[in-house]
Amino acid sequence: MDINILLFPDFETLDAFGPVEILSRIEEYHMHYISINGGIIKSRQGTNIFTAPLKNADFYGILLVPVGQGTRSLVTDIKFIEKLTQIAAHSTYCLTVCTGSALLAKTNLLDGKKATSNKRALKWVKSVNSKVDWITHARWAVDGKFYTSSGISAGMDMALGFIAERFGVNKAKEIADSIEYIWNSDKDNDPFAK
Amino acid sequence: MDINILLFPDFETLDAFGPVEILSRIEEYHMHYISINGGIIKSRQGTNIFTAPLKNADFYGILLVPVGQGTRSLVTDIKFIEKLTQIAAHSTYCLTVCTGSALLAKTNLLDGKKATSNKRALKWVKSVNSKVDWITHARWAVDGKFYTSSGISAGMDMALGFIAERFGVNKAKEIADSIEYIWNSDKDNDPFAK
Repeated sequence: MDINILLFPDFETLDAFGPVEILSRIEEYHMHYISINGGIIKSRQGTNIFTAPLKNADFYGILLVPVGQGTRSLVTDIKFIEKLTQIAAHSTYCLTVCTGSALLAKTNLLDGKKATSNKRALKWVKSVNSKVDWITHARWAVDGKFYTSSGISAGMDMALGFIAERFGVNKAKEIADSIEYIWNSDKDNDPFAK
Repeated sequence: MDINILLFPDFETLDAFGPVEILSRIEEYHMHYISINGGIIKSRQGTNIFTAPLKNADFYGILLVPVGQGTRSLVTDIKFIEKLTQIAAHSTYCLTVCTGSALLAKTNLLDGKKATSNKRALKWVKSVNSKVDWITHARWAVDGKFYTSSGISAGMDMALGFIAERFGVNKAKEIADSIEYIWNSDKDNDPFAK
């Protein structure tokens, strides 16, 4: 199963690489770094990363959408949202980190579904699409194939939660232990909701 | 001040990008991705990243040394250790994550100093250099300009601890809050020491 990590200029490094560190511990998951047109993508932290074009990705993989400084303009980029809609609709699972859920919400695939986002940005996120059932108190939220996490670091807790549901909680704990990560395993325990 | 992130083939993605996410929140810190000869470096998680050659780095910056699958062969790579010794000796601060401390120990700059590492690898790490005062119970350790952290995720706690000492604990808490990271702020609180 391919993990398609969708990168765009000024994406937040930990948003992508926190979950990647965890998901890559599953042998059958293969990491694919993609962007709309492929080529080099520079993160907010100045990392230049090679990406393959989205059209070459296996659309039935697991999609990971991080956030970035560019998110607020990307929600109005019709071409980007169109491409995101195509891959998200086909993907077996969609995982978003931080306001990556705002991008996914813009595709209308989250309409009527439970989702969460960074708690500092919730007002803006709700304004992007009010038809989503935005959860204001959640480390991460699950609705069908959609996993949406709270702010940046919450993506790691969600990735472990995702693995727990697929491979059992012991596998998730084993991965957390192997990277010495103190896992907040309760998706409803959100210390940043206040 | 430059943050020189020293990458090498098969480095562990979160080792580098956890601390990078945190350190980059300090306006005066500039991220520089370097490797011994420069060029493209592929992480253990398949990320292809552009790096500048080490010789072009500001040797008086802050050095960040992650770990990787290649670490166990790199400790015997005389040329690599020679270059690492040069930059580490000049660097204002040296930060290592996981068994990155074994690489640093090999330079002999840690001799007689307190340092820590991944708790699962401590036996091997001690065998690399027994003249280091290896701390078996620490989320991270500080001795002069040397900051060494425990396994992979501990690098984030250490980076926040490093910032707390330079810019105050409130600044570190502010950064942790902004990325919704549950900071283990006590360097002696090591849940993985057992």
